[in-house]
Amino acid sequence: MLKDKIKIALIQHSFKGDKKWTITYTIDLIQKACKNKVDLVVLQELHTSEYFCQIEDVKYFKYAREFEREIEIFSKVAKKNKVVLVSSLFEERTKGLYHNTAVVFDKDGSIAGKYRKMHIPDDPGFYEKFYFTPGDNEFSPISTSIGKLGILICWDQWYPESARLMALSGAEILIYPTAIGFDINDTKEEQNRQLNAWLGIQRGHAIANGVYVVAVNRVGCEKIKDSKINFWGNSFIFGPQGETIALASSNKDEIITKELDFNRIYEVRNMWPFLRDRRIEFYKNITKRFLT
Amino acid sequence: MLKDKIKIALIQHSFKGDKKWTITYTIDLIQKACKNKVDLVVLQELHTSEYFCQIEDVKYFKYAREFEREIEIFSKVAKKNKVVLVSSLFEERTKGLYHNTAVVFDKDGSIAGKYRKMHIPDDPGFYEKFYFTPGDNEFSPISTSIGKLGILICWDQWYPESARLMALSGAEILIYPTAIGFDINDTKEEQNRQLNAWLGIQRGHAIANGVYVVAVNRVGCEKIKDSKINFWGNSFIFGPQGETIALASSNKDEIITKELDFNRIYEVRNMWPFLRDRRIEFYKNITKRFLT
Repeated sequence: MLKDKIKIALIQHSFKGDKKWTITYTIDLIQKACKNKVDLVVLQELHTSEYFCQIEDVKYFKYAREFEREIEIFSKVAKKNKVVLVSSLFEERTKGLYHNTAVVFDKDGSIAGKYRKMHIPDDPGFYEKFYFTPGDNEFSPISTSIGKLGILICWDQWYPESARLMALSGAEILIYPTAIGFDINDTKEEQNRQLNAWLGIQRGHAIANGVYVVAVNRVGCEKIKDSKINFWGNSFIFGPQGETIALASSNKDEIITKELDFNRIYEVRNMWPFLRDRRIEFYKNITKRFLT
Repeated sequence: MLKDKIKIALIQHSFKGDKKWTITYTIDLIQKACKNKVDLVVLQELHTSEYFCQIEDVKYFKYAREFEREIEIFSKVAKKNKVVLVSSLFEERTKGLYHNTAVVFDKDGSIAGKYRKMHIPDDPGFYEKFYFTPGDNEFSPISTSIGKLGILICWDQWYPESARLMALSGAEILIYPTAIGFDINDTKEEQNRQLNAWLGIQRGHAIANGVYVVAVNRVGCEKIKDSKINFWGNSFIFGPQGETIALASSNKDEIITKELDFNRIYEVRNMWPFLRDRRIEFYKNITKRFLT
């Protein structure tokens, strides 16, 4: 359960050329957002650096060695601003074992929990299987002083299973730090289909589960060697009927602040009680790879 | 697997005042659709009668006694028009045991298979739990001469589990005969949210599974005693990225005919290979009612 109402801020921004300046810039935006008395700030995927997974290069593993130091930095930011903060960092779990990890800080700066990305993509420009070991955590929400947060990361957003499991574990809000963008070689039509598919799948999770869904995506063009991604922004908040509560631009740094009313979940779920009618005795094959 | 390309017709219509005239009218529309050389015709939920579940009354069980006779009728229609036909009928399985059942006829008029609705709704104006025993079939597609059809019915459409299980069983098209409408006492905003939620959840299934999704909904206003539903039509075809291929009106009888290319599923799934990365070893709790 969450507090009845929370004020949330989504921070969408471009990479600022190096990690140090990007972190400084992000902290500045968090402080700006917190002047508006928000309870919860959500940052985008791997917000401290460029999206290095555009290419496979061992040199980027050094970023993960800064995991503990970055935890210290953002712990202090959460404490100073008395805010629950969802960060997304490159984790070195031990030498040679790395994760794409969301760290959630509570208002006192303590670590409320970590979530290691479970579904790892790998396609041209998104070589994440090279960098990140798939998480070995359950799909369980992270408890904070403002309630349970269903933290998932990017590629997880395409899977109804992870959304459902978070909701069954009591999450009333799903939160996806994200890095997704346009391939500039695709046609405008294909780009639109992809953006709408990304919005559409997550709207589906909101509707199926009667929960709020939030995604914070990178914005801006990033180039590494011959690879280039135009991150499409469009960070959003969907309500428990899938209605659009906020939608950011595709090309600008933005702070989006909204108050969310979790009593609305009663109304929506009582009207269309999907959880009541699940045929759980017929779902066991969901755990199979394929059935033919 | 389906044929590479099929031509599908969706037939959306209002109730014509009695069963006999409604069936005659429907057969006429099927024949009209088949002049266009379609492979597959899909009808709406409980298309032979009014949507009697608006109220609870034992008198309607007599409709289910006509199940075998209606099978004969639509078998002949399928054979005469050499078309695969998805009908949606009120089934008497034995005395006092009833189902909401889709019967699929192959082009030779034989029964390709039946699907008994698994998720049964019950809310004001939709008292289906009074009439229909929940199905006891697996979520398996029905094999026909044009390929495997993932037949589901109405309330099933809110469940990512049934869509996923059909896709894992090889269905490349999900087909939902449907009866859903506006409560005229709701505000315009609420009506819009509901319609968009209905479209949104099914768009989500298309995207999550990389399959075509088709729904055929009733249209027109039906009144029984003090209950009234304005069925919202909007029958649709979504492509495997969730893109809208066809969308019917909210208030007119319509035949929608489109050719679907199942090779497109290769392109979409190869580009975004969601099936590759499912973390099946972590999904077992989907079979639980709730986890707290």
